[in-house]
Amino acid sequence: MLKPPVDPDLPHRVARSAAATEGAVTRTADVADWLDERRRAHRFEVERIPLADLDGWSFDEATGNLGHRTGRFFTVEGLRVTTGEGPSRHRWHQPIIEQPEVGILGILVKDFGGVPHFLMQAKMEPGNRDLLQLSPTVQATRSNYTKAHKGADVKYIEYFTEPGRGRVLADSLQSEHGSWFLRKSNRNILVEATGDVPVHDDFVWLTLGQIGTLLRRDNVVNMDARTVLSCAPLPDGDGLALHSDTELLSWFTAERSRHDVRAERVPLGGLPGWTRGEWAVEREDGRYFGVVGVAVRAGSREVARWTQPLFEPKGLGVTAFLTRRIGGVPHLLAHARVEGGFADTVELGPTVQYTPANYAHLAGPDRPPFLDLVLGADPRRIRYDTVHSEEGGRFLNAESRYLFVEADEVPLDPPPGYLWATPRQLTRLLRHNHYLNVQARTLLSCLTSGAVRLR
Amino acid sequence: MLKPPVDPDLPHRVARSAAATEGAVTRTADVADWLDERRRAHRFEVERIPLADLDGWSFDEATGNLGHRTGRFFTVEGLRVTTGEGPSRHRWHQPIIEQPEVGILGILVKDFGGVPHFLMQAKMEPGNRDLLQLSPTVQATRSNYTKAHKGADVKYIEYFTEPGRGRVLADSLQSEHGSWFLRKSNRNILVEATGDVPVHDDFVWLTLGQIGTLLRRDNVVNMDARTVLSCAPLPDGDGLALHSDTELLSWFTAERSRHDVRAERVPLGGLPGWTRGEWAVEREDGRYFGVVGVAVRAGSREVARWTQPLFEPKGLGVTAFLTRRIGGVPHLLAHARVEGGFADTVELGPTVQYTPANYAHLAGPDRPPFLDLVLGADPRRIRYDTVHSEEGGRFLNAESRYLFVEADEVPLDPPPGYLWATPRQLTRLLRHNHYLNVQARTLLSCLTSGAVRLR
Repeated sequence: MLKPPVDPDLPHRVARSAAATEGAVTRTADVADWLDERRRAHRFEVERIPLADLDGWSFDEATGNLGHRTGRFFTVEGLRVTTGEGPSRHRWHQPIIEQPEVGILGILVKDFGGVPHFLMQAKMEPGNRDLLQLSPTVQATRSNYTKAHKGADVKYIEYFTEPGRGRVLADSLQSEHGSWFLRKSNRNILVEATGDVPVHDDFVWLTLGQIGTLLRRDNVVNMDARTVLSCAPLPDGDGLALHSDTELLSWFTAERSRHDVRAERVPLGGLPGWTRGEWAVEREDGRYFGVVGVAVRAGSREVARWTQPLFEPKGLGVTAFLTRRIGGVPHLLAHARVEGGFADTVELGPTVQYTPANYAHLAGPDRPPFLDLVLGADPRRIRYDTVHSEEGGRFLNAESRYLFVEADEVPLDPPPGYLWATPRQLTRLLRHNHYLNVQARTLLSCLTSGAVRLR
Repeated sequence: MLKPPVDPDLPHRVARSAAATEGAVTRTADVADWLDERRRAHRFEVERIPLADLDGWSFDEATGNLGHRTGRFFTVEGLRVTTGEGPSRHRWHQPIIEQPEVGILGILVKDFGGVPHFLMQAKMEPGNRDLLQLSPTVQATRSNYTKAHKGADVKYIEYFTEPGRGRVLADSLQSEHGSWFLRKSNRNILVEATGDVPVHDDFVWLTLGQIGTLLRRDNVVNMDARTVLSCAPLPDGDGLALHSDTELLSWFTAERSRHDVRAERVPLGGLPGWTRGEWAVEREDGRYFGVVGVAVRAGSREVARWTQPLFEPKGLGVTAFLTRRIGGVPHLLAHARVEGGFADTVELGPTVQYTPANYAHLAGPDRPPFLDLVLGADPRRIRYDTVHSEEGGRFLNAESRYLFVEADEVPLDPPPGYLWATPRQLTRLLRHNHYLNVQARTLLSCLTSGAVRLR
């Protein structure tokens, strides 16, 4: 009746799925056509509208915060972030999305011929390039699945909310974008079904390797799918690394401790440096992002028409892990990043995570670390370079180039705030909450699924 | 040049230290006399004073918050906690300690004849029974070691702030009392010294087993020592348990997700249900705790005399793990607890954690779960029953009976919010942040040190 800490077979089955670039149900080559077909079946339209035309949404008279008349979904408020004290004190203000509920990002898994397959959904999100991308089986806020939308049921939700409907393979709380969300996290769950699973329209079974193939194409696999897939448990191997796990955890603890970050909610109205125009709340200098409104008409979403605010960044992001072999083992250069909305000061991000347009005015030592190394990398050193969309339910045209770049010249002892760790050291941390930010998880999902193989 | 994830010898060395009830340096029987001798050497006096006599501390005119004129140390503010929504909405108000800085609780470790010894300090804290108890090598707020006290240096601090002074054995962020601190956490660090370590007055080398012997006495080992010791890495064994680690983590994630806890700082002045008198800020019904003032005169603290506020609970706490054998393996009944000051909604606590006096007016199904089972337990089922003090730097006369009670009649499928887990499953989680609350860590330190052996 007793069980071992971890099912010893599971990591090997996941590895088999990652190695399978064709599946038992659908050919990889047919997925693009199927997505196009689903796109035609739903005829989505998204239109940018003035903020005043948002239906059910309004700016509070006292605070200027943007919220829905029901008090549900989310609000856009102001955030004042202060780091350090005395001469090293630094402070900024920004709008932030306040959505305290924990959503569910769940992928249903089922064995076909000894190879686990993942049930992916063709899901429309208003902010995504091409609108419809491959998404988790379930991608639901609590409002979604408790029917605040007054729309259709969330399909397959019972596998993730009713214990015993399947076998849990992974289940952890992971942060969303700390620059745009205040202390937002979602459950990232993989559940293996034991019995028959009916496959509804808009759903498809794919192996991890098939999804890896699709991750080599721009804007096909959505952010929510990427973060859940990064949590799939892979075999440990011998686990050798430049630093022991104890050293890695100690470094992380020291980074969390040394950063003194105070994030306080303040009114959106009168937020220093930001103004509200007809079409956007945005910065006077045009940098970072704006808060805009859209109207959406769609067939497959929970309700047929709605309007909502979205955050729209100013330009394409660049998100990259530098990699190098150490003692024959590939390592990634992790960065302990402060983002104002993190639940706990810092999380581990990729080496580089910037929107270059925001830093175009800087030169020399003021340039963000390692950014120019990535932007100017010899193509022969680039192991992966693909554009992906961020959360299309909250962000409009938020896209980043995701890269792995070989950088053997970066020393074993990098600058403060950076540390070399192996991919498996980082994915092991994904069993736990809030170690790795969502951008790092996207890049790790490319390794987990075999989209990238490091040399 | 590469390292394994964890030093494979370390857990066995820690186990040897836990098995050693005598040390290479000091006899266990001599520790009590040594503590008495240190107590006499310092001649501490603590006196209760009216709140108006606090020197350097005052109630802010606008907010009623209690703070120090330098803006350092900590403030006492109000907290409004709301859980649930709609008909299940529950709200309470309480004073809370706001001290956002991360302190260091560090114990220095050194090998004597193949057995790790731990450098313990005889340290005075104004709120502790007998004032002076065995404490970690270093127990310092950031204000302490950056000299806000304008007092003496913190001895041995360099081992914990300068990488490379020793070898890190464990290093994680752990919460303090979530009922009295707002999002407070400290680094819990064990560092093994490689070279000579000078032993100052007030310090003594003890094995884990010696400390375990002392943990069977009331009020000898302080809270900070207990929490650090709970993090000492022990061997895994075969790791068999009623639930796999994956199931345990999934249950914990679900518990964090299902609890909707909103904790907001509000002014201490006018806090509903609380009044400020000459001697205390306390509830009109006399329950829970009060905020009081003390004057302290001491020789061995960083400064020779000071005054400060302390939280004083109303009565002795009862903190207990129920235990039972499952498939021949001892398990503990963990409870997913909401405390208003936790960084993230819930942490795992002991089965029972209450101050019975606060619930004396309740009967039948309104009684706290399992409390009466502990209070009425047959003495033959009690494996451990010892009184320990909570953090004496912030709390006055805050003591709890800590118990392990055998309860084979509790079913394998306990009520929602409770789960059977093995001690090693729980201590493994202590490598990571914020899984186990400080009361659970005290009880786990009794197992780690061999003070309790479960049947």
